[in-house]
Amino acid sequence: MLNDRVLNARSVAVVGASRTTTKRGYQAIRVLLDEDYEGEVFAVNPREESVLGLKCYDKVSDIDAEVDIVLITTPGHTVPSILEDCGAKGVAGAVIIAGGFGEIGEEGRKLENEVVETAHKHNIRLIGPNTSGMMNLKTRLNLVGLKNAPVGNIALLSQSGNMALTMITEASIKSRSGFSYYVGVGNEADIRFHEYLEFLENDEQTKAILIYVEGLREGRFFLQQAYQTTRKKPVVLLKSGRSPTGARSAGSHTGALAGMSEVALTAFRRAGIIVAENSDELFPIAETLSSQPPIVNNSVAILADGGGHATIAADQFTDLGVKVPELGEKTKEKLKALLPEAASVRNPVDVAGGADHDPVVLAKCVKILLRDHNVGAVLMVGLFGGYGIRFDQSLSFREEDAAHRLGKLVKETGKAVVVHSLYNYAKPHSLDLLRYYGIPVYDSLEIACTCVGALARYGGYLRGYKAKAKFVFTKGAKASTRGKEIFEKARSEGRRALYEHEAKELISLHTHAKFVDCLAHSAQEAASMVERFGSRVAMKIVSHDILHKSEAGGVKLNIDSREAAAAAYDEIMERAHAYNPSAQIAGVLVTPMASEGIECIVGTKIDDQFGPVIMFGMGGIMVEVLKDVSFRVLPISPYSARRMVDEVKSSRLLDGFRGQPAKDRKALQRLLLSVSEVIGSYNDIQEMDLNPVIIHDEGLTVADARIILKA
Amino acid sequence: MLNDRVLNARSVAVVGASRTTTKRGYQAIRVLLDEDYEGEVFAVNPREESVLGLKCYDKVSDIDAEVDIVLITTPGHTVPSILEDCGAKGVAGAVIIAGGFGEIGEEGRKLENEVVETAHKHNIRLIGPNTSGMMNLKTRLNLVGLKNAPVGNIALLSQSGNMALTMITEASIKSRSGFSYYVGVGNEADIRFHEYLEFLENDEQTKAILIYVEGLREGRFFLQQAYQTTRKKPVVLLKSGRSPTGARSAGSHTGALAGMSEVALTAFRRAGIIVAENSDELFPIAETLSSQPPIVNNSVAILADGGGHATIAADQFTDLGVKVPELGEKTKEKLKALLPEAASVRNPVDVAGGADHDPVVLAKCVKILLRDHNVGAVLMVGLFGGYGIRFDQSLSFREEDAAHRLGKLVKETGKAVVVHSLYNYAKPHSLDLLRYYGIPVYDSLEIACTCVGALARYGGYLRGYKAKAKFVFTKGAKASTRGKEIFEKARSEGRRALYEHEAKELISLHTHAKFVDCLAHSAQEAASMVERFGSRVAMKIVSHDILHKSEAGGVKLNIDSREAAAAAYDEIMERAHAYNPSAQIAGVLVTPMASEGIECIVGTKIDDQFGPVIMFGMGGIMVEVLKDVSFRVLPISPYSARRMVDEVKSSRLLDGFRGQPAKDRKALQRLLLSVSEVIGSYNDIQEMDLNPVIIHDEGLTVADARIILKA
Repeated sequence: MLNDRVLNARSVAVVGASRTTTKRGYQAIRVLLDEDYEGEVFAVNPREESVLGLKCYDKVSDIDAEVDIVLITTPGHTVPSILEDCGAKGVAGAVIIAGGFGEIGEEGRKLENEVVETAHKHNIRLIGPNTSGMMNLKTRLNLVGLKNAPVGNIALLSQSGNMALTMITEASIKSRSGFSYYVGVGNEADIRFHEYLEFLENDEQTKAILIYVEGLREGRFFLQQAYQTTRKKPVVLLKSGRSPTGARSAGSHTGALAGMSEVALTAFRRAGIIVAENSDELFPIAETLSSQPPIVNNSVAILADGGGHATIAADQFTDLGVKVPELGEKTKEKLKALLPEAASVRNPVDVAGGADHDPVVLAKCVKILLRDHNVGAVLMVGLFGGYGIRFDQSLSFREEDAAHRLGKLVKETGKAVVVHSLYNYAKPHSLDLLRYYGIPVYDSLEIACTCVGALARYGGYLRGYKAKAKFVFTKGAKASTRGKEIFEKARSEGRRALYEHEAKELISLHTHAKFVDCLAHSAQEAASMVERFGSRVAMKIVSHDILHKSEAGGVKLNIDSREAAAAAYDEIMERAHAYNPSAQIAGVLVTPMASEGIECIVGTKIDDQFGPVIMFGMGGIMVEVLKDVSFRVLPISPYSARRMVDEVKSSRLLDGFRGQPAKDRKALQRLLLSVSEVIGSYNDIQEMDLNPVIIHDEGLTVADARIILKA
Repeated sequence: MLNDRVLNARSVAVVGASRTTTKRGYQAIRVLLDEDYEGEVFAVNPREESVLGLKCYDKVSDIDAEVDIVLITTPGHTVPSILEDCGAKGVAGAVIIAGGFGEIGEEGRKLENEVVETAHKHNIRLIGPNTSGMMNLKTRLNLVGLKNAPVGNIALLSQSGNMALTMITEASIKSRSGFSYYVGVGNEADIRFHEYLEFLENDEQTKAILIYVEGLREGRFFLQQAYQTTRKKPVVLLKSGRSPTGARSAGSHTGALAGMSEVALTAFRRAGIIVAENSDELFPIAETLSSQPPIVNNSVAILADGGGHATIAADQFTDLGVKVPELGEKTKEKLKALLPEAASVRNPVDVAGGADHDPVVLAKCVKILLRDHNVGAVLMVGLFGGYGIRFDQSLSFREEDAAHRLGKLVKETGKAVVVHSLYNYAKPHSLDLLRYYGIPVYDSLEIACTCVGALARYGGYLRGYKAKAKFVFTKGAKASTRGKEIFEKARSEGRRALYEHEAKELISLHTHAKFVDCLAHSAQEAASMVERFGSRVAMKIVSHDILHKSEAGGVKLNIDSREAAAAAYDEIMERAHAYNPSAQIAGVLVTPMASEGIECIVGTKIDDQFGPVIMFGMGGIMVEVLKDVSFRVLPISPYSARRMVDEVKSSRLLDGFRGQPAKDRKALQRLLLSVSEVIGSYNDIQEMDLNPVIIHDEGLTVADARIILKA
């Protein structure tokens, strides 16, 4: 757990304090003083007597009081010696503004390592380097130099100063929300995202956590922590840098590794994180989640005054997977009694001018709707806030009355209300009142819908929480002696890959499935194996010098007799020698031909940010052309294994497509879990490729397997 | 062509003129007078002496001057008699505000028909009914009653008054753009979308056309007109009501048929229309297209000050399919000379604070970038407009200088500049200057990117225009005598469907392909056919009383001898009788077995809005589960036929997947064109289903065909 003295520091020293107004060493002190930081401020600069009325110390260790944190505004190369001095003083944390570290390449990486080592030696925790700074808005510890940032209950973690500025600006001008903390995580040289997350999970004022990330340094720890945190409070995240060009841009400014987007998205969602799709919706989602209750039944009622907005909102909810259910009969009757004849009392409800003479009618409609147990929340779209502007100013007071009612309704029912208003720009008092009650108001219809969607998604996540995978990463838990031997043998022979039969055996050790493949070293051996199996067999060359077996003529199928097997053995060996005379040949693998079934593919690889991940898809074109695959960060739970299969659209082939009998989904799910166990048990596997796996009516066959070892 | 007296009316009579300030008959006159409408205004109300100083006439025909257009504000049932009177007066157009027509069902539809008939009798063109009205902002002919709508060069057609209000509000508060015309098309009872489009195409002031639509009454005419219009000026469209709930909502307020979205989207795009995905981006796209040149090479340079925004923009462009190309070496050198060391001169360009002391540096960067021939446009993201706010007010003047330079650069180079600014909300003068030069500024990064994407899409469309399909809908063009006979025979036998062999023959009449299937009426006939074909055959029962042939035991495959054929014939007949003793049986169809190939599906149906459409997909799961299909409104051109196949991802199977020889794409494309011709030639076809079509290495076989006739 991150030391309280870092983010809740009660004293700060600014190293590089300056009298030049454009310098950070001036601006930071100016803001700390102007905004009445609760703690003590010290200025450090050997070349100045005083800055802004504060005495200047030559160095941090000269300060005659406890210093919790230092803000280092001087160039990168000065940082190691400053940290040495801070270490002597017992400083708990340092914010390093300078760039020129890991993000610029090898040279900078060296300096970054030196800085981190120095800090570790002295138990100093580092924020940055290459950061815009940090703010604790509760104590007004503002180390960013940005004035008038709004205080509130959203914590902000960002890998881009720009995006932080965007979020803070948006909060100021478009909401009544604000921030508890802001941390520019910079290069994450020391403190990583997951440590901030853990800290914020336990901060009482923080009701939602907003993250902008381009790449994570410790993806697995982040997921594990997020999995804990999201049970207690919502986490909203935007991940950019997912395109090659975007990654190039991200790389050039944070040194972050921009990761595989599909893996990242699935992983974030599995950990309960609400993933924003674009930067416009990022702050609104955080605002909504910080102030409105999650939706428990994924259903919303739309309340409109006129058709267009309602139609667009209904389309959006369809896209978002949020239900717009039919209303109960009683609800419809009550609405009918309240509204003019032209009104539509189906969902979406269109009051059709029924509020023109009294906007309180809208609050009454919301009340009726929220009491319908089909309805989990209400989105009110259109003109609220504008009745006083459009018709008669006196209606403004009725709108304010309505706002008070709406605020109370949310409290009473525990159901969310979100508002879209065309008149948001005019800043009518009624909309400000709604925000006072925590009801968010947006001038974008799509963003309002997206926010409702986020409440539904978060509610759904919390409801299904128990079924989810535990993000507990164990290592070597179930490694068997035989399994270890297989890897040792390969290593001892200088191989970077397991042979097919070794890979299959390794999988079988973790599945209770029978492993029957045999390696023949002579034609006679091959012949007797065919007899033993009593079925048709496939025969394949086994050599780590021959990767493309078919191309080398090293595969024979449907061998059904002793004679054929002996002949096939000789032919395979002959062709292999012709193909590559110097190839080391381990033998010829004899495998019973798999019975009929449907082909699929299971694979694993190591993701830059999240470590081992597993991939599943149906065979051939579904994977190669249609990219109809699913990913998970390993390990996975039975729930995840089932979901992975379900997510692949073409997995419906397993259900008995066109009158075929259904295939053994359970066996497939067990295989995914076994692969998860194998990867968790041995630290040797770089990549695994089970392709094809043939799913039968009962059981399955791993028809080919390839495992590449780590270097 | 729509009579000029309708949308450019030089005199207007308000029927239902009123002294009550909340009534439309008051508001309309108030605004016409307040805003100094160029033409003459007359008030009509038999129960008033005068309204707002205007003398009240009892009826329109009493007016002693020419009346171009009338605004009818009275209830629906009064409209027919008012139109009769207008007819006597020689009125050219009428705007009907009242609802209660087609949108409420059968009752209203009757009234609507009566109104339309009356209008046609007197050559009166109708806007509406069920409309918020019409505005000609050039002459200030404002029949909506909305004050201070901004004048400009965008024409607005909307099926929702709400959405029109949204667009007009957005223009007022977020842009310097405005409107030339607004038409609330209402129920489209008389004047349809395509007629407005034709009119606006020829209006000089209109530079872009913005459309909000829920459903079209004449989809094919609309497409045909749009195809003409978009060559001359951009058309932006949002189509909502695409989800079942959305359609329900749309239905309840405009009576529009909400159509199949996939068909609609493809059709709109093919006609050169820029389709907006959501309502947030609708106005901005129109604004940008009305003032900036299209991008001809689908490439953009991103200019940023700091990383986050650049990364997000790069991601967006990847999603939008817009290239962010590497810059030329010279460009990079020039940028390097201008910018600090920390700057990134790759695309995205990050000035990294290089404009902090002089924002004119950004204009200089844009100049360098626009001169690079790899660069088709520049998106400037981040802080422009805010340097004066963040640092020193004097920088505002430098920003204004930069704005002037940017404005001139667009003119000189003919390349677009679009700006995203975090400081938009603060309304700095520099951003207003940019807008003065037609450079749009957005506070949403995503919308800025989307607008650049729209310029690129429109530029790409214009570039590729010649290759596109002509939207010319001919009927009966190539109907053959034999083809007509086939339909007549089916009709005369009381059938609603063609037999398989009839359908196949019909197709063959339009393909030059040989049609060989034979209908056997006895075992002997069947036997001799097998002999004649000299290949294996399939045999299938032909009866319009037996739809599920396989289920009825009516299909036999791979028959390879006279004897087998005779036996198969008897067995099929026997089983058919057992399956349905009263079935009328036409015979047994004998078809050569198709040689090997890849299966696909070609179908047609009649779309509510766009008439006949064609569908293509690869066989089985690709269509049924993965919905990997493409649609086009018929007829199609060779270009469209090729694109239809390309758009289906799984069509890559045709390219020789996994070492198979490539299949005959050309033959497939020819088949699509033949189907297009068949549909265009006979007016009898409700639905066609060629499934499967087997594509060979050379040529193809239509293995089964079904054609349903119109009722």
